[in-house]
Amino acid sequence: MIKVVARSVAIQGKEDEIIALSKELVLESRKEVGCIRYEMYQDQKNASVFTMIETWQDEETFQKHKETPHVKRIVPQLNALRVEKAVVDVYTLVI
Amino acid sequence: MIKVVARSVAIQGKEDEIIALSKELVLESRKEVGCIRYEMYQDQKNASVFTMIETWQDEETFQKHKETPHVKRIVPQLNALRVEKAVVDVYTLVI
Repeated sequence: MIKVVARSVAIQGKEDEIIALSKELVLESRKEVGCIRYEMYQDQKNASVFTMIETWQDEETFQKHKETPHVKRIVPQLNALRVEKAVVDVYTLVI
Repeated sequence: MIKVVARSVAIQGKEDEIIALSKELVLESRKEVGCIRYEMYQDQKNASVFTMIETWQDEETFQKHKETPHVKRIVPQLNALRVEKAVVDVYTLVI
């Protein structure tokens, strides 16, 4: 199992656009083989900070995810609304 | 529901000590009222990076967690094995 934490910061005022765009990405990603969980969160203290927390069956399904049409189409659009690209940490479970 | 992502970096060579100490913290935390999920992850690219990903029923149960004996006893010991205190982001679910 693989956990992905992808944290990004919206350009001020672009939060609603990011949420709308992300909805499609989240819903499409949840349909993928190997996608155990795919959720978008907003930081309590800073409403411009959004974090995707994803759980993938294995490395292979996660790598395939990155090559899907919806990721290739939507992520560049999201990046245009972000201060910078998302910081993506990929984890494996310890406890 | 509240999601907590607490990322910290181990002092080089202290990784095994951190894992051993964290195990007690994780197992005790999972017993708490309102604790939906409490897991420790290790970064795939940097084995010194550990992240707790926690799901709490609400703000109240999360605040109580921070006052528990096991947190008060173990977290300072963990901090002594870390490069610096954990960076804790608290999130609410958007999608």
